[in-house]
Amino acid sequence: MVLTDTNDYIRVLTLNRPDSLNAFNQAIWEGLSDALTDACDDNSVKVIVITGAGRAFSAGADLSQKDQQPSKRPGGSVGVRQFVDQMIEFPKPIIVAVNGLGVEIGATICGLADISYMAESARLRCPFSTLGITAEGASTYTFGHIMGRQAASWFLLGAEWMSAAECKDAGLVLELFPDDEFMDSVMQRAATLAKMPLASLLETKVLMMAPHREGMHAANTRETEALARLSGGPANREAISAFLEKRDPDFSHLEQ
Amino acid sequence: MVLTDTNDYIRVLTLNRPDSLNAFNQAIWEGLSDALTDACDDNSVKVIVITGAGRAFSAGADLSQKDQQPSKRPGGSVGVRQFVDQMIEFPKPIIVAVNGLGVEIGATICGLADISYMAESARLRCPFSTLGITAEGASTYTFGHIMGRQAASWFLLGAEWMSAAECKDAGLVLELFPDDEFMDSVMQRAATLAKMPLASLLETKVLMMAPHREGMHAANTRETEALARLSGGPANREAISAFLEKRDPDFSHLEQ
Amino acid sequence: MVLTDTNDYIRVLTLNRPDSLNAFNQAIWEGLSDALTDACDDNSVKVIVITGAGRAFSAGADLSQKDQQPSKRPGGSVGVRQFVDQMIEFPKPIIVAVNGLGVEIGATICGLADISYMAESARLRCPFSTLGITAEGASTYTFGHIMGRQAASWFLLGAEWMSAAECKDAGLVLELFPDDEFMDSVMQRAATLAKMPLASLLETKVLMMAPHREGMHAANTRETEALARLSGGPANREAISAFLEKRDPDFSHLEQ
Repeated sequence: MVLTDTNDYIRVLTLNRPDSLNAFNQAIWEGLSDALTDACDDNSVKVIVITGAGRAFSAGADLSQKDQQPSKRPGGSVGVRQFVDQMIEFPKPIIVAVNGLGVEIGATICGLADISYMAESARLRCPFSTLGITAEGASTYTFGHIMGRQAASWFLLGAEWMSAAECKDAGLVLELFPDDEFMDSVMQRAATLAKMPLASLLETKVLMMAPHREGMHAANTRETEALARLSGGPANREAISAFLEKRDPDFSHLEQ
Repeated sequence: MVLTDTNDYIRVLTLNRPDSLNAFNQAIWEGLSDALTDACDDNSVKVIVITGAGRAFSAGADLSQKDQQPSKRPGGSVGVRQFVDQMIEFPKPIIVAVNGLGVEIGATICGLADISYMAESARLRCPFSTLGITAEGASTYTFGHIMGRQAASWFLLGAEWMSAAECKDAGLVLELFPDDEFMDSVMQRAATLAKMPLASLLETKVLMMAPHREGMHAANTRETEALARLSGGPANREAISAFLEKRDPDFSHLEQ
Repeated sequence: MVLTDTNDYIRVLTLNRPDSLNAFNQAIWEGLSDALTDACDDNSVKVIVITGAGRAFSAGADLSQKDQQPSKRPGGSVGVRQFVDQMIEFPKPIIVAVNGLGVEIGATICGLADISYMAESARLRCPFSTLGITAEGASTYTFGHIMGRQAASWFLLGAEWMSAAECKDAGLVLELFPDDEFMDSVMQRAATLAKMPLASLLETKVLMMAPHREGMHAANTRETEALARLSGGPANREAISAFLEKRDPDFSHLEQ
C-alpha cells in the first residue's frame, strides 16, 4: 500500500491505492507509519518525500472502512491521531508532494510537512463541516500559523475547494510546478537538502519545531476529543445518510 | 444605535450612527455587546456579520464622549476592554464587513474577527501614536500573528492610512469586493458558512481559537494598562490640544 | 568599526568594515552593542537604523577571526548570543536597512528588527547547513513566525541565495527600494516614526514584543547550545577544510 524508493539519501514514500484515490484505510495508515519509522532509523536516508500514485494525492479517510479492525501490528493500531503525533516528532525533513487532489488528511498533511509542493492542476479541500465533524491533522494550529486565522477559518469552516494558486498564496505549499515536471522539480529541491550534512538537518529541524511542537500536539489532542463528540451525532448522521442517498445534506432542521 | 437583521441563520449587526461615521460612544459599545449576547443565545443564528451604516465603517472611539457615563446597564458598563474580551470568547463565527473607512477599533476589530472582508474604496488607520496613546483591540497580538511583526509595527507605530489593497496583502482582510457589490458578496460568503451544521462551526471555531485565546486576552490586559499610563500624559495632552486647535501635534519638546 | 550619525531623532549605525564586507569580528560585535546601549540611553534618539558601509550589508561572522580574544570591554565580551539578547530587549524601534548582500547574522538580523527594508539588488543567504552548523539569531523562531515554517525551513536548511523579491514575498523585509534611492527612502520611513512621541513608540513596541520575547530568547539559547554541539564536529571540519582548499564540501562519507 506504500511504495518505498531510496536514491541519493532521499526516500520517496508513495501512497499506492490509486483505484481508491489513495484514501487512507488501516493498511495505509500502518504502512506509512512503519515506512516513516524505517526512514528514521536508516542512516542512508536524510530527506523523506511523501506523494501519491496515479492522479490523486489522497482522498482522505476511507469512509467505507470507518470501523477499524483490531490491529495485528506489534506497535498497536495506527489512525490519524497516532500518525499526526509521529509526523510532529519525526526528526528528518519531510517534503509533501501534492501530485493531485487532496482531501481531509490529504490536505491537512501539508501543515505537518516541513515543506510542501503542489502540481498546478491539483486542488485541496477540507470538507469537515459538510460531514458534520471537525478538522484534524493539527490543522487548527498549523493552518492559522501558516495562513493566518482568517484564511484558515474560511478553509476549515467553509469546506470549499482551494486551487493550487490559492494554496500557494495562503502559504500552504511553498511552490507550484507544472504537472508534467512535478516530481522532477520536487526531487531537485529534495536533492538540495540531501547534499547537506545530516547533523545540520537534524539540529536545525528540531530547533524550528521547538516553538510549535507542544502547540501541535495539543491541537491533535483537542481535535481527537472534538471528533469523538461529533462522530455519530445528528449532523454527522445526516451527512452520512446524504452521502449514501447521493443527495446534498440538509442541516437546517438541526438548528430548530 | 445597532441595527439587527436575521435571514437564513445569518445575523447582520449594523453600527448605525452614520452622522458620526459610526464612532463608538457608550450606546454603541453597549448596543453591540448586547446584540452579540443575543446572537450567541439564539439557536436560529449561526453566523454574525458586523458592518456600518452609510459611507464609513467606524471612525473609532468618539473623542467628544471620552468621559463615560455611569451605565444603567444590568451587566455594567462596556468599553473597549470588555468588548474585546467578549469578541475573543464569542463562540459563533464572526465576519467583519469593512464597508468604508475604519479607524482605531474600526481597524483593529479585523484582527478579532474570524474573517474580514473590505470594500475596494475603504481604508484603515491606527493613529494611536499620533494621539500619544497606544494600540488596542488586542492588535498588538493579532496584527503580528496575521501580518508578521514588521508590517504590524509599521501599521501600529507609523499611523499611516492603509489602502484596501495593502490590507489584503497584509492578510488583515481575506478578500476585497467592489463597493457596489460589497454586501452581496459578503452575504454569499456568510451563506456558505451558514449552510454548515452549527455543531461543526462551534467545535471548529473553539479549536482554532485555542492556540490564541490566552495570548489575545493577555494583550488586551496589557494594552488597557498601557493606555491608562499614557492617557492624560504630556503626549496625549499635546495631541488633544492640537486636535482642538486644528493643528498638527508637535511632540518634539517632549523628548528634550 | 561602527559609525554613528544622529539627525532629527534618528540614529544611524553603519557597520564600517567595507573591505571585509562588514563581516562581524569582535570589534564590530562590541562596537554595535555599545552603540545600541548609547542609543537606548540618549533621550534625543527615538529610532535606530542599522546599515552597512560600501556595497555589502554584512557577510556574517568573520571566519578568519573564529577564536575570540578575551575582551577588555567592561561589560564582558559580546558575540552573537549576547547581541541577539540585546536586540530582543531593545526598547526603541530598530530599522534594519539591507543595503547589499547579507549572510548569516547579516540575514537573520532582519527577523530581530522591528522593520527591515532592502535594496533591490541585495540578496540574503543562510549557509548554516553547508558549514556543518545550524541557524542563529533566533531565526529558528522569527523566520517561522514571519514567513511560515515551510519557507523558513527551505531558507534555513537549503542554504540557497534569496533575492530581494523573494525576501519581500516571504515578509522578511517590508519594502524594497531602488539601490540609488535606498537610504533616502529608508530615512523617510524612519522620519515618519521619529515624529511620534517617544512614549507611544516605547509602550507600543513593548506590547508588540510581549507575545514573542520569551520564545525568541529560548530560541537563542537552544541555537547556542546546538552550535556548541556541531562546532568542530565532522561536518563542520569538512566544511572548513573545503573552504581552505577552495573546493565544495562533501558530506556523503559522514552518513555511512
